[in-house]
Amino acid sequence: MQPTVKDLLLSGARLTDAALERLLPATDTLPHSIHRAMRHSTFAGGKRLRPILCMEAARMVAGTGTYPEGIADLGAALEMLHTYSLIHDDLPALDNDDLRRGQPTAHVVFGEATAILAGDALQTLAFQTIAGLPISSPTTVAILRDISLAIGTGVGRVGDLDTKLPPGMIGGQVMDIEAEGTAPTAALVEAIHRSKTGALITTSIVSGGLYGLSLRHRSSSSGYSNDEPTETKASRAAYAPYADTIARLRTFGEKAGLAFQIVDDVLDMTQSSEELGKTAGKDTATTKATWPAVFGIDQSLHDAEELIADAFAALAPFGEAAAPLKSLAQYLVERKN
Amino acid sequence: MQPTVKDLLLSGARLTDAALERLLPATDTLPHSIHRAMRHSTFAGGKRLRPILCMEAARMVAGTGTYPEGIADLGAALEMLHTYSLIHDDLPALDNDDLRRGQPTAHVVFGEATAILAGDALQTLAFQTIAGLPISSPTTVAILRDISLAIGTGVGRVGDLDTKLPPGMIGGQVMDIEAEGTAPTAALVEAIHRSKTGALITTSIVSGGLYGLSLRHRSSSSGYSNDEPTETKASRAAYAPYADTIARLRTFGEKAGLAFQIVDDVLDMTQSSEELGKTAGKDTATTKATWPAVFGIDQSLHDAEELIADAFAALAPFGEAAAPLKSLAQYLVERKN
Repeated sequence: MQPTVKDLLLSGARLTDAALERLLPATDTLPHSIHRAMRHSTFAGGKRLRPILCMEAARMVAGTGTYPEGIADLGAALEMLHTYSLIHDDLPALDNDDLRRGQPTAHVVFGEATAILAGDALQTLAFQTIAGLPISSPTTVAILRDISLAIGTGVGRVGDLDTKLPPGMIGGQVMDIEAEGTAPTAALVEAIHRSKTGALITTSIVSGGLYGLSLRHRSSSSGYSNDEPTETKASRAAYAPYADTIARLRTFGEKAGLAFQIVDDVLDMTQSSEELGKTAGKDTATTKATWPAVFGIDQSLHDAEELIADAFAALAPFGEAAAPLKSLAQYLVERKN
Repeated sequence: MQPTVKDLLLSGARLTDAALERLLPATDTLPHSIHRAMRHSTFAGGKRLRPILCMEAARMVAGTGTYPEGIADLGAALEMLHTYSLIHDDLPALDNDDLRRGQPTAHVVFGEATAILAGDALQTLAFQTIAGLPISSPTTVAILRDISLAIGTGVGRVGDLDTKLPPGMIGGQVMDIEAEGTAPTAALVEAIHRSKTGALITTSIVSGGLYGLSLRHRSSSSGYSNDEPTETKASRAAYAPYADTIARLRTFGEKAGLAFQIVDDVLDMTQSSEELGKTAGKDTATTKATWPAVFGIDQSLHDAEELIADAFAALAPFGEAAAPLKSLAQYLVERKN
């Protein structure tokens, strides 16, 4: 019997939380204030969607039916990056949000200085966690490259696996700020969504796939040679046979990520603050560039459904093994908060 | 004839600037504002001390007499991390500094939101740059681990090479903020200095050493086996024969880094804003925890000289090859700004 999406969400969140609990310094580690702030925002009730997508992509690609050993640490690193972006996004100088996931935001509880540094430290800890993943070094480097490209400002200049990447997460935040007060166009809203939230969701799935592939790779006899090539060559050589798999995961992530953000925009317009756990109607109040602002709510929901269909199509060759990722994608557009 | 320290500083800065110029997105890359802010702060007249220490450590250890190919990219990554920390440290919520290296700080020119995101993006770009270094993947992972530990909040939990590391750069910034308004003790001041500035200086030298060793390693026949061990095992196996070299570089970095910060504190008390290129006397005005505040100026200068002697001693086995690093360390305590 296939597990329900609720099962997947619960078990994935539990694994992620256990990894975060282990990886984040304890609140009694000096200096106290920043570790309290890091934990406050990390354990404020997030759904762990990015880690869960990462773990399911790894499981699907590894073909073993179980989560690959250590994958929760990669999931935790992605959640740290997501949390860092939220802490900084909520700062008074940016979105000035006092409430997130039903909790007061970090700067409200710990002050701006500590909130800024806690975000910085979560980014750093994510990369430290990646450095400690129990996988081969070429895979670690490939994951490092994909994730760092996804959360930066622009198209990568350093041997990217895919040159058609949109600007990264920070680039999306800047575009979002720059767009405030201007009339949003469809192209701009799509660019912001693809980068601000889509890029991290996509790399969650792609990095999970790279992680899962490294296990298949290890057990196959067609291992790449290891006469100390440059890392770029090594990573490329290692993943060349899997280019189609990576491209399909990327397409799935891009489509599902955009659908997710469109639904987020719609929920912001239609749900109360209590239902959302954050300040509702904020996007409208500040004339943010959102999908329903350009296309209306009905068209937005239709677009989200179509994107999910495209996302499903990308996973067709994986057959039954794709069921968990597909049910998660379906959940992304049907959720109510 | 040995090059003078002025020659070393000039040629090292030139190499670093060329790498930064190539690695930082152009100001006409969308979104514009953040790329302008990143370049504004990166090219505001820094001396490039960390990249230069990194390059000289690599050259000394590689034993070739020339800078290893691609080492300037690692230096540039370290300078990005330094610049990110300065941008965030100067923010109104932290040190609230309007002037740095004789230039208006990022938040003064571009606003707080863009300054926060520009700092974030420089941290990300540093890790993206590390992912693209033209060296073996195990070395890249070892460098990633050492640098991420050095710029975080606490002692690393993820397979660190050395368990006696002080808290990292962000930990030092937090301790510095928490210490404000309290009477500074010797132990606290040393902990802040070792982490806030010392850790990044130390990892600049250690990561440069790892880079240089990877070249020696490649040309030796005692290469580590590559039957897909975990990255931790691979990195440890790769660098086990060089543990003494790494330990010596770490000692040199810690001693020279502490001496550097002590001299920085003394200069803050004795030089004018014009000479320093930043607001002078600021540490005293805000009762910051500084070395001369605890020990007085004469004792501070004496301590700095003694630390430099210890730093020199650590490099004794390298003989003449250590001359550039030693002359740089001497410069750190003799400089006037």
